Amino acid sequence: MKATAQAHSNIALTKYWGKRDKKWMLPNNGSTSMTLDKFYTQTTVEFDEKYGTDEIILNGEKMAADSKEGKEIREHLDLIREMAGISTKTKVSSNNNFPTAAGLASSASGLAALSMAGAKAAGLNLDKKELSILSRRGSGSASRSIEGGFVQWLRGEDSEGKDSFAEQILKPEAWSEFRMIVNIVGTQQKKWKSRAGMAQTVATCPYYPMWKETAQNDSEQMTEFIKQKDFTKVGELAEFNALKMHATMITTQPMILYWQPTTVEIMHNIALWREEGLESYFTMDAGPQVKVMCLAKDESELIKRLHEIKGIQKIEVCKPGPAAKIIEEHLF
Amino acid sequence: MKATAQAHSNIALTKYWGKRDKKWMLPNNGSTSMTLDKFYTQTTVEFDEKYGTDEIILNGEKMAADSKEGKEIREHLDLIREMAGISTKTKVSSNNNFPTAAGLASSASGLAALSMAGAKAAGLNLDKKELSILSRRGSGSASRSIEGGFVQWLRGEDSEGKDSFAEQILKPEAWSEFRMIVNIVGTQQKKWKSRAGMAQTVATCPYYPMWKETAQNDSEQMTEFIKQKDFTKVGELAEFNALKMHATMITTQPMILYWQPTTVEIMHNIALWREEGLESYFTMDAGPQVKVMCLAKDESELIKRLHEIKGIQKIEVCKPGPAAKIIEEHLF
Repeated sequence: MKATAQAHSNIALTKYWGKRDKKWMLPNNGSTSMTLDKFYTQTTVEFDEKYGTDEIILNGEKMAADSKEGKEIREHLDLIREMAGISTKTKVSSNNNFPTAAGLASSASGLAALSMAGAKAAGLNLDKKELSILSRRGSGSASRSIEGGFVQWLRGEDSEGKDSFAEQILKPEAWSEFRMIVNIVGTQQKKWKSRAGMAQTVATCPYYPMWKETAQNDSEQMTEFIKQKDFTKVGELAEFNALKMHATMITTQPMILYWQPTTVEIMHNIALWREEGLESYFTMDAGPQVKVMCLAKDESELIKRLHEIKGIQKIEVCKPGPAAKIIEEHLF
Repeated sequence: MKATAQAHSNIALTKYWGKRDKKWMLPNNGSTSMTLDKFYTQTTVEFDEKYGTDEIILNGEKMAADSKEGKEIREHLDLIREMAGISTKTKVSSNNNFPTAAGLASSASGLAALSMAGAKAAGLNLDKKELSILSRRGSGSASRSIEGGFVQWLRGEDSEGKDSFAEQILKPEAWSEFRMIVNIVGTQQKKWKSRAGMAQTVATCPYYPMWKETAQNDSEQMTEFIKQKDFTKVGELAEFNALKMHATMITTQPMILYWQPTTVEIMHNIALWREEGLESYFTMDAGPQVKVMCLAKDESELIKRLHEIKGIQKIEVCKPGPAAKIIEEHLF
């Protein structure tokens, strides 16, 4: 039993930052996102008695059994095996069509593709909601990569997360003028080690309670703004919400500072250009990349200007992308 | 009646951000600072019936009557005249020994020197507490520039600010190994106009209530750490407090982003060097400059490394500086 799935990465318009439950991977707040047409993961999962252990190949490289990624994928396969009532080992082969560690949400597309291919190969017949929940358990933001276009991941109330899944707000073709310009900045300085994550923010950031209080409302508002296709409101809220998340990061102890010099340079320029009448907004995630939102009419002018910023290594323009899908299956 | 005063600028170790009363210039929270030996303002105030209007010369340039600075200084002179029961006009001449708009707290040293020289020339006999209160009414942080060394500006409770003044925590010579390395970054990008201030933060930042709640405690803790001369605790708290303030700035609507690319580059480097064993901490105010705190033993190594950062235009090393004083008077 073998299946191949393709899932696209997504960029949050209102962010997920902080879990209320680690085991079930439940968020403190809902979030919204756009699925990207350009970046995706293709994953093949084969269940076969001939494998004595899970064999995992990421971008052509075999993962060590004790590596962090290797463990996470094996644990996720265990979930799928448990659901299917099987114990068969697998061969997993996964490829991204974009650099893995570049902060482009490869864990979102990766875990969504693994969930979809794994479930199919294990003989499970899951609907989108069930696939979103399964993906969520591997990586929170992966829940949003099952659907295409504009997506809302519901916080939910259930203690085991039965109501915490993502659903589509708008189809990709319903707002095809929307652009997400991904500016790859890269790390310009030698990295210092002490890097905390969202659990540390929840534990130490004095502003986190207020994030929690406002982020849920942001996601609900964003869902409405997306439905209305109100670009100005979507952009303003996305930018503000990203700044709110990064404000909780820099006030985590120890500090989490994802911004690089070029990150800040782009932020200043977007604000300046907007003042001059070129409407765009920025958002940043757990990395130095800056994603700039605009409408199709302003795309070429923005790209021209962004190309003049020396610290940007690469610019990729994304449109709202498709839902995850099975692209090949051999079930026998 | 003519007097000249010299007052040194100061850098906050725990910040002042947000007023509870605009008329009396009362802060929401107490703050602490170090007075800088290197940067000061010298101001001469002369009351004479021969002047038909207040004549104000800043760094050799005559201020227009309707300029922002001109108005602020006139209003402050009115306060002094009211206290002295006179209506005589003045000639004010004020000089900074450092660039005015470089974010080096020139309003702190300027308003403190103006208050001290003005009060003396008006025949008022004010003690340090009264001078600190008078300075505060011109510019909040100026209250801290009357004293030398390490200083605490008390929040106070009185509605007219009778108990909101600065007092010395430590004399300059009591912690002479303390260094504040001022890194002049300058503005690297063309500026966008929309620049809000602290009133906007108070009105719109969702995290501001938590700033208010924690900043007062930070100042009280910092006062203890300074008394103990515990450099690590002073540095850690100063850095965290500065990040907390900037977090409220970036989440103000519209955004207040003082950081420039080099600001962030210095922050990353300080964190990295500290990890490698070179102990220093950063703090930033309402400007792109980064002030790096260290002890005398690490000064030369830090300066060597900072000189390798291209975006830094100038590096100035400050030690704890003296209190404001009258340096010349002609009272007849």
